Amino acid sequence: MKVITLLTDFGSFYPAQMKGVILSLLRAEDVTFVDIAHDIPPQDVRAGAFALLSAVRYFPPGTIHIAVVDPEVGTDRSGLAVESGGQIFVGPDNGLLMPAARSLGNLRAYRISLPLPAPAPQSLPVSSTFHGRDVFAPAAALLAEGRSPADLGPRVEPEELNFGEARRTERGIEAVVIYVDRFGNLILNLSELPAFPVSLKGINLRRVRTYAEASRIEPLITQGSHGFAEIAVNQGNAAEVFCLKAGDRVELEEI
Amino acid sequence: MKVITLLTDFGSFYPAQMKGVILSLLRAEDVTFVDIAHDIPPQDVRAGAFALLSAVRYFPPGTIHIAVVDPEVGTDRSGLAVESGGQIFVGPDNGLLMPAARSLGNLRAYRISLPLPAPAPQSLPVSSTFHGRDVFAPAAALLAEGRSPADLGPRVEPEELNFGEARRTERGIEAVVIYVDRFGNLILNLSELPAFPVSLKGINLRRVRTYAEASRIEPLITQGSHGFAEIAVNQGNAAEVFCLKAGDRVELEEI
Amino acid sequence: MKVITLLTDFGSFYPAQMKGVILSLLRAEDVTFVDIAHDIPPQDVRAGAFALLSAVRYFPPGTIHIAVVDPEVGTDRSGLAVESGGQIFVGPDNGLLMPAARSLGNLRAYRISLPLPAPAPQSLPVSSTFHGRDVFAPAAALLAEGRSPADLGPRVEPEELNFGEARRTERGIEAVVIYVDRFGNLILNLSELPAFPVSLKGINLRRVRTYAEASRIEPLITQGSHGFAEIAVNQGNAAEVFCLKAGDRVELEEI
Repeated sequence: MKVITLLTDFGSFYPAQMKGVILSLLRAEDVTFVDIAHDIPPQDVRAGAFALLSAVRYFPPGTIHIAVVDPEVGTDRSGLAVESGGQIFVGPDNGLLMPAARSLGNLRAYRISLPLPAPAPQSLPVSSTFHGRDVFAPAAALLAEGRSPADLGPRVEPEELNFGEARRTERGIEAVVIYVDRFGNLILNLSELPAFPVSLKGINLRRVRTYAEASRIEPLITQGSHGFAEIAVNQGNAAEVFCLKAGDRVELEEI
Repeated sequence: MKVITLLTDFGSFYPAQMKGVILSLLRAEDVTFVDIAHDIPPQDVRAGAFALLSAVRYFPPGTIHIAVVDPEVGTDRSGLAVESGGQIFVGPDNGLLMPAARSLGNLRAYRISLPLPAPAPQSLPVSSTFHGRDVFAPAAALLAEGRSPADLGPRVEPEELNFGEARRTERGIEAVVIYVDRFGNLILNLSELPAFPVSLKGINLRRVRTYAEASRIEPLITQGSHGFAEIAVNQGNAAEVFCLKAGDRVELEEI
Repeated sequence: MKVITLLTDFGSFYPAQMKGVILSLLRAEDVTFVDIAHDIPPQDVRAGAFALLSAVRYFPPGTIHIAVVDPEVGTDRSGLAVESGGQIFVGPDNGLLMPAARSLGNLRAYRISLPLPAPAPQSLPVSSTFHGRDVFAPAAALLAEGRSPADLGPRVEPEELNFGEARRTERGIEAVVIYVDRFGNLILNLSELPAFPVSLKGINLRRVRTYAEASRIEPLITQGSHGFAEIAVNQGNAAEVFCLKAGDRVELEEI
């Protein structure tokens, strides 16, 4: 039983076509699909990279992750197959895969050269708008059948992505919102809680270990389960309260 | 082939981490995941309990249901494993599991004691914000591998939840909206249709057996397929027409 | 391993009940579920038919597709099982299945007669509001176990659906938006790009092979990966820019 995950900014409808392609190509292997997320904000490579990074440590060796947030589809940016820590990543060479792959240890990255080796569908044209279906899904199926990433193309140095460095300023800490989850929790590019009490937009953030330590609708800052600092409102929605979204810069002021 | 369902208020992204944990722990069993819903209104335990109740009667014996709507995560509320009617329920002890478990017959409930028995990951810390991933998912994996709920902790009396009793008033029936589905249909805590014609907010509700008996955009009341009375607007959206949401109280007036 | 896809306008919660029914009935077969989409605009049969049409060519022979967008549930419209190109379609006889089934070759359609043959659940009542769960899901389970569509009822001539014909007008081309995807891309009932440059609502559309050929937030027209013409805004949202939704008529003016 092979585990294949999918992470995209596609919403519904397109991911099923990717699964169909994979199911059509697999001969000897059963597959369990896990959808990590398909609601990444459109073309937000950083949010996608964060979601993938947060998930991969929980998956078993042998898992294949297909991730597609790909504003440059149809240009000459390459596709990648990356091996790291016993897992394999397939997607565009725009940094999306890298924080997750790096988190598992040393990695080796290979450019996906077209056409793909048989039995990938040689007769189907590769569309210029949907490499998720026409390149990455068949590549993942080949890998699931036992092909090595090195069979798909030459070894390359992939484009990197980092979440930037939250930085100490005179007044506190400047950070960036890298993800907003369904509860409106704001995940920051800050891997340790500030060593001092902070406020955001003039509102004090209670430092807690768990949401429930705060009062109802009290704003708080905590170490999220993903390892990054997270601003939340207990039983409320911090994104709405602070009017912030993924990509926004925030100033945590020392109080 | 083991069937494991998931119901949460997590949206996307977090449920995949739970599935990864389960796939990492399973050794002898294949698994089919079924997502019941991940769009329960945040922290609405009653809506989650209704969705779970509506689904479980359709699942085969041996199914394991993980449900997490958990405003009190990180406090000392317990986790539960509940056996009922040949199915198993895992989640917080806040009533979420109980209507579904009770609907299948006599139940036995066990507190999940930490640390979990091996081979649950002993080295990983249990986060204070994500028991779905750190407690309930590994507990479900142990149960899928053949462990009994009684292996996880002592037998307990769980916290109950009911949907309240719609009650007869002088003017009609007072009920509560327990769920709003994607069509804007309003599901009430009322297990039988009123014996008399009713109106809501001054608008008569046609009593029908099926939506299509009503005219286009005509408001109606019907026995939903889940067994509760449901207010709908044929080919329209009752939640918008009546400006109601889950948790709202409604007065059905006799006409 | 049997592949069963689901496409509905149900959102969450109801599709899981359909999967539970199928899992309860299967005895000899493992199943892989693929959700094509559950966010079809409520009761928009044409949008559902388009999504199904776009997906089926990627699925392997033997796949069973259950599709339910069914404004007339509970009336005397029939249910269908349709064989085409080695795949099977199950759903209401309202045209939803037909473009997809026709795209795979010659088809044979059978009316689903009730009660279903054993071992479909004879004791459960067929609700008048949820045939997806009470008729189509058990029918699909029977087909997955090896029953033939002809076992379910008599051969019939199904109701057809087409996407209309975009037509040449004096000033350009008149077309209809049949689907809006998550990026706000507008998919038109136009299978070939116009042979001349066009504008929409006074804004020129750049004709491109791939989104990235256009400048950032430049409106464009391209041949979508699904084979239909598509109006998009590079790294933007055409549905918002042009204020259009599924079902709207558009006039592409020659420039």
